Amino acid sequence: MSDTVLNPDVRLPRDLTRDSDFIRAVRGRATDRTPVWFMRQAGRSLPEYRRLREGVAMMEACTDAAMVAEITLQPVRRHGVDAAILFSDIVLPLRLAGVDLDIRPGVGPVVEEPFRSAADVGRIGELEDLSFLTEAIASITDELGDRPLIGFCGAPFTVASYLIEGGPSRDHALTKALMWERPQLWDDLLGRVADVCAQFLQTQVSAGVSAIQVFDSWAGALSREDYESRVLPHTVRILESVPEVPRINFGTGTGELLAVMAVPQCEVVGVDHRVALEDAIARIGPDHAVQGNLDPAALFAGEQVMQDMAASIVAQGRAAKGHVFNLGHGVLPGTDAEVISDLVAYVHSL
Amino acid sequence: MSDTVLNPDVRLPRDLTRDSDFIRAVRGRATDRTPVWFMRQAGRSLPEYRRLREGVAMMEACTDAAMVAEITLQPVRRHGVDAAILFSDIVLPLRLAGVDLDIRPGVGPVVEEPFRSAADVGRIGELEDLSFLTEAIASITDELGDRPLIGFCGAPFTVASYLIEGGPSRDHALTKALMWERPQLWDDLLGRVADVCAQFLQTQVSAGVSAIQVFDSWAGALSREDYESRVLPHTVRILESVPEVPRINFGTGTGELLAVMAVPQCEVVGVDHRVALEDAIARIGPDHAVQGNLDPAALFAGEQVMQDMAASIVAQGRAAKGHVFNLGHGVLPGTDAEVISDLVAYVHSL
Repeated sequence: MSDTVLNPDVRLPRDLTRDSDFIRAVRGRATDRTPVWFMRQAGRSLPEYRRLREGVAMMEACTDAAMVAEITLQPVRRHGVDAAILFSDIVLPLRLAGVDLDIRPGVGPVVEEPFRSAADVGRIGELEDLSFLTEAIASITDELGDRPLIGFCGAPFTVASYLIEGGPSRDHALTKALMWERPQLWDDLLGRVADVCAQFLQTQVSAGVSAIQVFDSWAGALSREDYESRVLPHTVRILESVPEVPRINFGTGTGELLAVMAVPQCEVVGVDHRVALEDAIARIGPDHAVQGNLDPAALFAGEQVMQDMAASIVAQGRAAKGHVFNLGHGVLPGTDAEVISDLVAYVHSL
Repeated sequence: MSDTVLNPDVRLPRDLTRDSDFIRAVRGRATDRTPVWFMRQAGRSLPEYRRLREGVAMMEACTDAAMVAEITLQPVRRHGVDAAILFSDIVLPLRLAGVDLDIRPGVGPVVEEPFRSAADVGRIGELEDLSFLTEAIASITDELGDRPLIGFCGAPFTVASYLIEGGPSRDHALTKALMWERPQLWDDLLGRVADVCAQFLQTQVSAGVSAIQVFDSWAGALSREDYESRVLPHTVRILESVPEVPRINFGTGTGELLAVMAVPQCEVVGVDHRVALEDAIARIGPDHAVQGNLDPAALFAGEQVMQDMAASIVAQGRAAKGHVFNLGHGVLPGTDAEVISDLVAYVHSL
């Protein structure tokens, strides 16, 4: 624990987690067993989560320190996953920076007045008091001990898409049209979103998360050329704002993008299930660990199918610099919580 | 016209279209200009379509010969596209074969009692009288003259997904679980769907369509291995049931699948906009023509952006055996009809 002596301000939990399988894997060091956690492990698949959330709006749940801590810890207690992921939402920092948006059940983020002009960029103010976040993380890391907590934020493209479309979109037509037609406004908007996301992440890192993941849920809607020239630079700015911890760069539908997502400013590239993990590793190259990529639908297919698919992914992952087992996207809400626990035990047994 | 003498039963329209730019391109012959048509060119982007559909349910519109003909011809008259595409829906053959389903506005196909068991396969009966289809095609081809009409049907995976999920699904979890866990039931179901789709297509070919396209909207949700072993054989059965005409095999999100989609039983592979066309051509190889792949969002980005993107696609397409210009997916409902016409004229000018 020499770092503690050298840097007395660094919270203990980050140091405690340094030799965990998760941190070893993301750093490309050997592990005793393949570490495993799941995107959306904290959420509707858990009865205890559904009970806790009854009558509580998403934004309220995300900003209440005690509730954030409890929801974040539930899947760790139940499943024995190797890492916790902070319970939050990708649009939360925007809301905390003054943007009039809400998360509607069954719909997703809704922005009352969609962003369309240079003046709209000014609607993103400064982040309000984030003490709820610091408080939640302190309480989570106290309970986790040597198990890592992963911080998170949305990537600028996905977050900006909600601002421009006014809600979830399948085709992102207005977002892309703005990107192509008004490159200066696009850069200003994504830059401002990146500022806020970076600040949100930096707060998490200062409070003691051991790693972070940036989620670009809609990156797969972009061509490689557009992603690389118009989107990735903003994501990189977020990643390079938290050099103290390992960073995971994740998006879905990214088969065409994996090679360019593997920037030096991240240690891990998250892979969705539409690409074979061995192909993904070849595209990402030897300098990054990988995370993924069991199809979330596999948890509906019975034990044998699920185990065969999981075993294949663990075997493919051995070719990577490091491998964290995860789903290719979030846990589906209808997933049986016991099946999730079984999967963790099975991956650990391999 | 020697074929007409040799095969007196073959309807004239198919022969008339043989030297059209569209048929030349799909056959890999030189063209005067790049032929262009658009998926969903017949539909909500056209004011004349919206007027005609007022108060008329989708299923009603799809089975009324006069309405099918009028809607199919509207975009040809307005935009001057190089081919018409039969106005229909991918679930229509199932409905005509007795499955209790409907197409709900703003939702999509809904199946009251989702398919879950071997007994459910028996709910797909025989196709009812398709004279409305024969009648519509006769009337369309009469007006089109030497301009081709493209017939169409859904691919078994996408159609089966609606039957199993009971409606549109983002994750296709039940569909994939059934595919992995109950391979015999899966094969029986897709086989039965393929039978009905093939019969629907054969009727179109007999009635005089000049080419056909099979739509696998959700193929991109599958891994290459699953697509190739569990889905493609059923699609191939449909394709090989209509050897008389050129066949287009299309799906979205198919970057990982293009190489295996290029089966000998089709002449053209449709490419969506998430893959650069030059990369797609490399994956598809020299034996197939390609179709695609402008991002539908480009039609919202102003003339200059749209033209630059279209010109790039036409230039990339020259490396293929043949190239039909199209969008990477269907025309978005909010697209300005005049912009569509402008795009046709621009592609023709290149």
